[in-house]
Amino acid sequence: MLKDVPRNRAYKQAIFDNKDQFRGRTVLDVGAGTGILSVFCAQAGAARVYAVEASNVAEIAAEVVKENGFEEVVTIIHSRVEDATLPEKVDIIVSEWMGFYLLHEAMLDSVILARDKFLKPGGLVFPESATLYSAPCSVPDMFDTWTNIEGVSMKSVGAKIRAENSHKPSTTLVPLENVLADPEVVLWLDLREVTPDDVSTAKIQHVAVASKAGKYQGICLWFSCTFPSFVTEPITLSTSPEDPPTHWQQTTIVLPTELEVEEKSPMVYELSLARSSENPRRYNIEVTMLDPEEVPHPEYCSCHMTKCILTRAVLEKYEVDSLPQ
Amino acid sequence: MLKDVPRNRAYKQAIFDNKDQFRGRTVLDVGAGTGILSVFCAQAGAARVYAVEASNVAEIAAEVVKENGFEEVVTIIHSRVEDATLPEKVDIIVSEWMGFYLLHEAMLDSVILARDKFLKPGGLVFPESATLYSAPCSVPDMFDTWTNIEGVSMKSVGAKIRAENSHKPSTTLVPLENVLADPEVVLWLDLREVTPDDVSTAKIQHVAVASKAGKYQGICLWFSCTFPSFVTEPITLSTSPEDPPTHWQQTTIVLPTELEVEEKSPMVYELSLARSSENPRRYNIEVTMLDPEEVPHPEYCSCHMTKCILTRAVLEKYEVDSLPQ
Repeated sequence: MLKDVPRNRAYKQAIFDNKDQFRGRTVLDVGAGTGILSVFCAQAGAARVYAVEASNVAEIAAEVVKENGFEEVVTIIHSRVEDATLPEKVDIIVSEWMGFYLLHEAMLDSVILARDKFLKPGGLVFPESATLYSAPCSVPDMFDTWTNIEGVSMKSVGAKIRAENSHKPSTTLVPLENVLADPEVVLWLDLREVTPDDVSTAKIQHVAVASKAGKYQGICLWFSCTFPSFVTEPITLSTSPEDPPTHWQQTTIVLPTELEVEEKSPMVYELSLARSSENPRRYNIEVTMLDPEEVPHPEYCSCHMTKCILTRAVLEKYEVDSLPQ
Repeated sequence: MLKDVPRNRAYKQAIFDNKDQFRGRTVLDVGAGTGILSVFCAQAGAARVYAVEASNVAEIAAEVVKENGFEEVVTIIHSRVEDATLPEKVDIIVSEWMGFYLLHEAMLDSVILARDKFLKPGGLVFPESATLYSAPCSVPDMFDTWTNIEGVSMKSVGAKIRAENSHKPSTTLVPLENVLADPEVVLWLDLREVTPDDVSTAKIQHVAVASKAGKYQGICLWFSCTFPSFVTEPITLSTSPEDPPTHWQQTTIVLPTELEVEEKSPMVYELSLARSSENPRRYNIEVTMLDPEEVPHPEYCSCHMTKCILTRAVLEKYEVDSLPQ
């Protein structure tokens, strides 16, 4: 993760762009790991940084802090944040808590707890918001690849791999050209206010409209996080297929069967994420394909179905008619 | 592994180049996996292929054989080869048994046993020979990377990672520009004759001479395999940093400390591989750095040490003097 350049740069720039907020202030780094974010905060002028790390990596963080000359500023606390005590409340919380598809194995509960316990009223949270997106995509590695491996048909292997993957989403880079429609927001979190209940389930039903012809073989998920900013455009850390790859890559749920779509074909799916009752750090993800004929489309749907073409025509006529003469 | 194009192509080409050897013959595929090599052999005209696979993947192999229309030619035997019985001896053994650094987790013992039990005298083995190489290299991911991560010194992290990796070689792609000297052969195996004893230990001592200035930070290992050929140049499957990447990548043993070398600096190391007594499918690898001053160099050594420069001068003078006048 330390080699994830977009991740490191987004945090560094968000912190350095807002040095005025950090100078002389107190910061809590939740799940500090090797301490890189704590050092960024110290470099930005924080008066005190509490770096809380539950694992033994805390020992390395102490060395990292020392080799950067901030042992007077950064206090390493080798503890779960749930068990930690701080001598004071803090002005800012920084944390890199995001897991695959934002929520997987994530530490968000710990960040929420830390915020409620240790952040001064009106304090800042870095990042401040997070958005989870989904979009239909092609997954050639799960389908097309297996039709011909050096002249050998291996469709049985593809089917087997898809069967195995239908129960677990896979983490891979989805090339932008494999994304078949505009993304939909699955979840938007304001980290100043979010509660654990807000992330226990998420469910959307989306009428995606194919932006090009292709093979509809899966749903891919990614997220972005936005940092507070008082001086510049807010910095966003994006894990979209449009942006440089990060260690989060994208998450793909493969469909049991593929569907050829044309440009403007509607692809209707229901996506649900639900916290596992056995392991609250895990989520069960389910994708259900719905029949575009049987589901209401949004009022202004750009798909090629007759009812949507007619509705668009009526709406456009109405807009023209209602223009001031 | 099925997506490893150099691997698939080398086997296919070696088999297809030698269709005359396969036509009407009997073949044993040891550790057949999903059966791709068995199908290649059937496509090349084999009369009978016995595909022996111990794991449940044998079931997928049966489907693959069927979807390619060779269920009359390929017999799937769901068994360890050690426990298998065949109704006849075979003309050819094909197997893709190679592990990381050739020997790791490898099935070579099974191939040897199958050869001794099932191959007709004078039968062919695909591949026929295998060579393991080593060379000094730079490993910037283990050293240089950690001196500056977005303005933060993280040498402690690098040291920790190196300490963890000193006990286990790592599998990564070594860019050719990180290889610092010509490779040395660690082990050469003739698969028609090799015995398990031949691969229980290997030890070399090598005076490598830097082909350029750089940071000597590790030893990397790779292998190549050569197939029998009766008509064309023998096909070689190479996993060298010079060749297109394979799923085997290269194997690197990182040194505890780095050494700056100049062009023509000698780098003397001893490399030993020894089969683990607890788990005979695993090997313990040890690299020992030796002092170039204290080790005899080869007769014609191209390094920049005075004794070698002098020896070279004498040898060259001798060669000139001994030329016919």
